Amino acid sequence: MRGPQVTPFHAGAIARRGAARLRAGLPFIPMHFGQPSAGAPAAAIAAAHRALDRDALGYDELVELRERIAAYYADTHGLAIAPERVLLTAGASAGLVAAYAAMFRPGDRVALLRPGYPAYRNTLCAMRLEPVEIRCGAEQHYRPTPAQIEALDPAPEGILLASPANPTGAMLDAPLLTALLASCRARRIRVISDEIYHGVGYGAPFVSALEIDPDAVVINSFSKLYRMPGWRLGWMIVPPAWAEQIHVYLTNMFLTPSTLAQHAALAAMDAREDLEHWVAIYGRNRARLIDGLAALGITRLLPPDGAFYLYADVGHLTQDSMQFCLRAVDEIGVGLAPGIDFDPDEGHRFVRFSFAVTPAEIDRALELLAGWLPR
Amino acid sequence: MRGPQVTPFHAGAIARRGAARLRAGLPFIPMHFGQPSAGAPAAAIAAAHRALDRDALGYDELVELRERIAAYYADTHGLAIAPERVLLTAGASAGLVAAYAAMFRPGDRVALLRPGYPAYRNTLCAMRLEPVEIRCGAEQHYRPTPAQIEALDPAPEGILLASPANPTGAMLDAPLLTALLASCRARRIRVISDEIYHGVGYGAPFVSALEIDPDAVVINSFSKLYRMPGWRLGWMIVPPAWAEQIHVYLTNMFLTPSTLAQHAALAAMDAREDLEHWVAIYGRNRARLIDGLAALGITRLLPPDGAFYLYADVGHLTQDSMQFCLRAVDEIGVGLAPGIDFDPDEGHRFVRFSFAVTPAEIDRALELLAGWLPR
Repeated sequence: MRGPQVTPFHAGAIARRGAARLRAGLPFIPMHFGQPSAGAPAAAIAAAHRALDRDALGYDELVELRERIAAYYADTHGLAIAPERVLLTAGASAGLVAAYAAMFRPGDRVALLRPGYPAYRNTLCAMRLEPVEIRCGAEQHYRPTPAQIEALDPAPEGILLASPANPTGAMLDAPLLTALLASCRARRIRVISDEIYHGVGYGAPFVSALEIDPDAVVINSFSKLYRMPGWRLGWMIVPPAWAEQIHVYLTNMFLTPSTLAQHAALAAMDAREDLEHWVAIYGRNRARLIDGLAALGITRLLPPDGAFYLYADVGHLTQDSMQFCLRAVDEIGVGLAPGIDFDPDEGHRFVRFSFAVTPAEIDRALELLAGWLPR
Repeated sequence: MRGPQVTPFHAGAIARRGAARLRAGLPFIPMHFGQPSAGAPAAAIAAAHRALDRDALGYDELVELRERIAAYYADTHGLAIAPERVLLTAGASAGLVAAYAAMFRPGDRVALLRPGYPAYRNTLCAMRLEPVEIRCGAEQHYRPTPAQIEALDPAPEGILLASPANPTGAMLDAPLLTALLASCRARRIRVISDEIYHGVGYGAPFVSALEIDPDAVVINSFSKLYRMPGWRLGWMIVPPAWAEQIHVYLTNMFLTPSTLAQHAALAAMDAREDLEHWVAIYGRNRARLIDGLAALGITRLLPPDGAFYLYADVGHLTQDSMQFCLRAVDEIGVGLAPGIDFDPDEGHRFVRFSFAVTPAEIDRALELLAGWLPR
């Protein structure tokens, strides 16, 4: 192998131990991965059943889905997006891989936020791009500032922004996003805006980078709000001048995304009541988890604006977040993600709780933690 | 965009015109793409229905499927492959992208056969690797020779072999594959063996590169024999020492492949009778198409050993295969793939017929061609 050594997802080790527990008949509460434990909306499941029975499921890109996604931007953000700019991808991940390949050259520098989603950094490395980390700690509410972008020297070729962000749930409001995108434009830094948690939030409005900069490349997915992680479907919105060529990258690298997932996703987009029902559950889980952790002495955290994560400083309990998470799964069957996945420098004292589980699972996890954590 | 300009699949334009015909209520015979027109085996569809109703379809890798694929190598090739060496991928395409990233560095030279599958070359370009073409014309039965590998100067870092090959259906028998792999080993050329058409053949035995060289990286898929192209699931077999790190590449770049497809694939692998039934149909289609084209004066072709393609020299009819295919779809509703997809130098006088359609579609296509081709 001549490629660089790439870092694994450490939460994967937690997932494997959790799966082993379930196989052995032991309980396991899956708060380690960023996936809703409820499956897709009933309407999406029903659409998949119908497609299974009537469609040969060849390579396909559903024009109706590209049009439906374009309509979503009109409805939600007041934006006119031509369906040709909507590119369907095998999850947000494949979209990012194609975007990296099409937008950058080996050795190019791409900025990203720390803490942040580990695959941003790891996939940049795998594709020989150089991650440039912008530290966004709790003292700045896990948000970057325009000054940080202006201080990057030399200017990177690109930047990855995420709102709501993983693992912190921090969102960029319109004034901040406007200022950040202005700094990027002034320095000719190309923006990739990861908006996969749009729709999963607790009051603040979701601002798409496209409302501010029509040249932003937007990544989105059916994995979070639509609760279809294992279906592997996402989309990108790309500038008009790039749409044809990025589509060529996608089809050569990946052909077309899952046809069945496309049929299901079309139905999922119209299941508004069902989607909102679960976001309301996450909202109650969020409040319950914040209160419950406070009662256990875990208070160094910022309530998330969106997504379904709490990123908590547990430095009073451990300086080795991986060991802490391994013990939590092995000793009490609670799956957590270690901070080192999101922040190689300071993550040793953080853990991420995913609260996209059932309220009963939140309560049980808090009970188990109460019996397990030192007083 | 700072990435290289990448060439589209020209057959995609045929597909779009075919889809437009179908939407307009006009007939279209889809012999342009490499996909079975019959859907997945009934057992796979049934398994998918069951999984839809009982599984939340989160990110998952089914251990049972990795074990089942390992068992396939024992049964079919007499090989002991540890399940850890079986990596599930979102189609063979995502497997190739991860293999390129993990195995090579930007600027590395990777040899491939001409004519050949266009995405090999285009994805190499997208990922800044340099394709080195080995011309394998009809006079050498579309097969490479060890001398051609020995003549590559300097030695490339890697080579892509395919048996059965797309678009020619040519297969590499054990003596030839042994000689080719020996030449590669002597020159330290890493081998990627694309075996996605294994199981689709007309008499000759399928030899896996793994029978000869345990260090070969093998790519396979559920898209062809198993008739699940739009489900997006494939697999790789990688050397033991590489398995963990290539898995890390895959999970960072793509997370996990479709969970629903994994459930269906597990059932498809045991649907032997159904799979063989359709391969027998392809065999009859193959004979009918060879005879029918001969009656129309299209005789410069080699009967394929495997896959479901006829690659025919139609230089007496056209020197512009794209124009020929555009006219065939527009004027008689027959979808064909232009040779320029597979061979930028000589493909202008070739077309590829996919015969993974129904016997009635083969007969109708021949009728339509008979009325359309000049006498």
